[in-house]
Amino acid sequence: MEERSITRRQFLYRAAAVGGTGLLLNTMNAWGIGIASRVNAPPVLNGSGKGKRVVILGAGLAGMTAAYELGKLGYAVQVLEARDFAGGRCQTARKGFSLTELGGDKQACTFDEGHYINHGPWRIPLHHQSTLYYTRRFDVPLEVMVNDNDYSFVYLESGGPLARQRLRPAAVKADMRGHVAELLAKAVKGNMLDQELGAEDKRALLDYLAHEGQLDQADLRYKGRSGRGYAINPGAGMNPGQMSDPLGFKELLASRIGNVYSAVQDFPMQNTMFQPVGGMDAIAKAFENQVGRHIRYKAEVQSIRHGEREVVVTYKDTASGKLRTVSADYCLCTMPLSVLRHVESDFSDQFKQAIAAVAYAPVGKIGLQMKRRFWEEDDQIYGGHVLTDMEGINTISLPSSNWQRKKGVLLGYYNYQTSAIEVSAMTPSERAEFALRAGEKIFPAYRDSFESAFSVAWHRVQYNLGGWADWSEEKRQSVYPLLLKGEGRVLLAGEHLSYLGGWQAGAIESAWQQLERIHERAMA
Amino acid sequence: MEERSITRRQFLYRAAAVGGTGLLLNTMNAWGIGIASRVNAPPVLNGSGKGKRVVILGAGLAGMTAAYELGKLGYAVQVLEARDFAGGRCQTARKGFSLTELGGDKQACTFDEGHYINHGPWRIPLHHQSTLYYTRRFDVPLEVMVNDNDYSFVYLESGGPLARQRLRPAAVKADMRGHVAELLAKAVKGNMLDQELGAEDKRALLDYLAHEGQLDQADLRYKGRSGRGYAINPGAGMNPGQMSDPLGFKELLASRIGNVYSAVQDFPMQNTMFQPVGGMDAIAKAFENQVGRHIRYKAEVQSIRHGEREVVVTYKDTASGKLRTVSADYCLCTMPLSVLRHVESDFSDQFKQAIAAVAYAPVGKIGLQMKRRFWEEDDQIYGGHVLTDMEGINTISLPSSNWQRKKGVLLGYYNYQTSAIEVSAMTPSERAEFALRAGEKIFPAYRDSFESAFSVAWHRVQYNLGGWADWSEEKRQSVYPLLLKGEGRVLLAGEHLSYLGGWQAGAIESAWQQLERIHERAMA
Repeated sequence: MEERSITRRQFLYRAAAVGGTGLLLNTMNAWGIGIASRVNAPPVLNGSGKGKRVVILGAGLAGMTAAYELGKLGYAVQVLEARDFAGGRCQTARKGFSLTELGGDKQACTFDEGHYINHGPWRIPLHHQSTLYYTRRFDVPLEVMVNDNDYSFVYLESGGPLARQRLRPAAVKADMRGHVAELLAKAVKGNMLDQELGAEDKRALLDYLAHEGQLDQADLRYKGRSGRGYAINPGAGMNPGQMSDPLGFKELLASRIGNVYSAVQDFPMQNTMFQPVGGMDAIAKAFENQVGRHIRYKAEVQSIRHGEREVVVTYKDTASGKLRTVSADYCLCTMPLSVLRHVESDFSDQFKQAIAAVAYAPVGKIGLQMKRRFWEEDDQIYGGHVLTDMEGINTISLPSSNWQRKKGVLLGYYNYQTSAIEVSAMTPSERAEFALRAGEKIFPAYRDSFESAFSVAWHRVQYNLGGWADWSEEKRQSVYPLLLKGEGRVLLAGEHLSYLGGWQAGAIESAWQQLERIHERAMA
Repeated sequence: MEERSITRRQFLYRAAAVGGTGLLLNTMNAWGIGIASRVNAPPVLNGSGKGKRVVILGAGLAGMTAAYELGKLGYAVQVLEARDFAGGRCQTARKGFSLTELGGDKQACTFDEGHYINHGPWRIPLHHQSTLYYTRRFDVPLEVMVNDNDYSFVYLESGGPLARQRLRPAAVKADMRGHVAELLAKAVKGNMLDQELGAEDKRALLDYLAHEGQLDQADLRYKGRSGRGYAINPGAGMNPGQMSDPLGFKELLASRIGNVYSAVQDFPMQNTMFQPVGGMDAIAKAFENQVGRHIRYKAEVQSIRHGEREVVVTYKDTASGKLRTVSADYCLCTMPLSVLRHVESDFSDQFKQAIAAVAYAPVGKIGLQMKRRFWEEDDQIYGGHVLTDMEGINTISLPSSNWQRKKGVLLGYYNYQTSAIEVSAMTPSERAEFALRAGEKIFPAYRDSFESAFSVAWHRVQYNLGGWADWSEEKRQSVYPLLLKGEGRVLLAGEHLSYLGGWQAGAIESAWQQLERIHERAMA
């Protein structure tokens, strides 16, 4: 059907298939329809979907985005959700929340009132305008999530001469960059780079290096600086403070500690990001407020069959154990591919194989409630990440909410791939012990302050079976375009069909894209 | 009196006077009483101040800190405050707030409900444990103040080949550091720095440079990177995003634009800082809640006279115009020196001259209410500073509150010294026009979005007469120790008697220090 006439959109897909992204983008730019401007808001669509039925599988952010936008267009939407709550991976664990991993015991979250861990998505980049479009539209209050804190710690076990020290990233950055600036200044002054630099370039570069590295004006040497922190902070009266001594260049180099940061953070990380006040699931709840009446909860999809005229989805009502069916004109399936592969369907073998080909990332997180915010009180760390090379830990992240309150929930580890599999094999209490053994090496008060834990291993969570689609470049070439196209009356959407893997924006933008295609077909 | 026995404290002052800070700190460290640990909380004092009277001049943060702590010790405290509200410079302009500068017309703030400008102190560093001690103690809710935002703009009028462009600091940092890393890598690989670096150092340094600058693995060249921002952001479907092109090294050097940032921010600036929710004056109000019953408002100090047995302060009740006196055992004067110099007293000529010798910084700020948050909606800038070299502007700072709401109040300029004097000579509406002319060069929507302004020139504000004490190194040597010592029964406190000039922490820590001295004397 859709093959009969080539829409502009279809042409673009073909351009991409034939000429790759380059041709796609060139074509789009030639048409003046740059993608960048398109993704700040849902597609503006004309026509009504009245009388057309769309069944949406999964009430995560992709599914609810589609339900909301298609509902506004007049479609009769029905969302099937296996759980008894909406949101997909957009979850927040707080008192009353419980989780039973596959093959595991039930974990009940017992954090104090007002404390929580976002064990799924936990931060919103400032340029994810699609996510921010809905937080604004649905009036979800946001607060800053401190993603980078130079006054946190970096702690490396295999850090050579700087191993097992609690170092402030500010000091490491100041000293590495200071020493590097001094070294380059020496080369420039020694006329070693005259082939590269003209006289005016040299003057400007020396000026820059002196500024960047705060080098001594007279001899262009790095001798430490205030921003790395003081040994004694300046104060009242006769206390101008006492500078701390810089770390030596050779020690820094040998420790490889400079590799924990980079010139700027990589996209899409930013020093400050956003989190909804009170927990990430505020976004899920806001969507649910809008489309909840269209969601059938405890509806576990069993099979998807699609013919010439309609698509029929069979699901099990897990409350009653009974099988039921929903038929619709189109189906938008937002289930993770790791789950969809286990659903019976009449997809072609090629499509089934494509679904099964995509790996999902094992991802683990643990929230630890501490009865005292020792990281703030003892170490003046307010948010951000403690970076470490300890196996299975990766980061200990401090909460960006409840500043200065009595208690706090920190993230004890955030692991993926191999280490996530290892740690997830432990029981919840073993995981907590594992996290405590690491954390107490860095914070003396860690173990004594610990009250309760809540952990998740996403690859062991029913209806998710993984953190996010883990695309290889090869799979992006081979099966991604196929999955993106869908089959018959079924289209797929979710973070797995975007280049924003693992981000809520990927789910939303993918939904925008696919609902537009459904609408195009319905209007055809 | 205090000279009779040399307390440890007095010894330290002498050590500082004789041997400078170095001797002071060495002595303290030898005694194991490092200052750093001392300033996290008020001094722990024994004994009762019962029956002793202390008159405190000024209900700013220094005065209220002293009133609170001395009150807890049992002293009868009386605070004289010239204004009809407490807080000193810790003010927030919101609807209902008004200000008449000396020689100026009354400005009434007409911002919408929920919007404000902190025209005095506006950010709290994470290591200012003294300020944070009271926000915690008084349960003042804090939120993150985004002090550094790599996705804001830098806009230089005299930026050579990059003049008048809205550049993201992230791009400038990525490109400058990338090019610099490449250049140094070239020198290292070319064995130009073999005198400085051993073989292992070279390997480690090349590894670091490749990481810091994200250099191409094969040829160690810088070719741009994701963190500088994309031309087209990655999105759903067939859109992996399109990288943007790096700025050229020669253009960057010639523009001198790299000098807007540094390896790390200088102390006490941090990427994220704090602000009280709803306005900085929440701190003033929290103190006022505690000590308000001891404050006599509209009490304008006229004279200070101190004899053997007591100190007598005369003030004018500006409501009635009548002169009244207060006598006390001790006086803690927290008035700015710029104001105190105009108060009649029987201080020695030397002390009077010391007071008069200290310059105060002219400081100006303007808040502009915008009916639309175009910086967020159009440019995805959420907080932080737009850096510019435009005369009298310095920074346009975006609010770290009311994210995604309809309106917002931004800081249109933050100027000091010469440019503050020039701008402050304008009428309030001329200042707004001045700010708009600058801002509209950077943001097309600036002027059309403007609704109302509120500005302050602290050097023109009665009872302040300046932003903060502007200490020269020479004055720190000559008159600072004298002022710190006080005279007779009068001690001075405030940010001007600290090395935390202009910060609230300076006022608080100075008060802690001087109230301890009062207590020592009272107990002697």
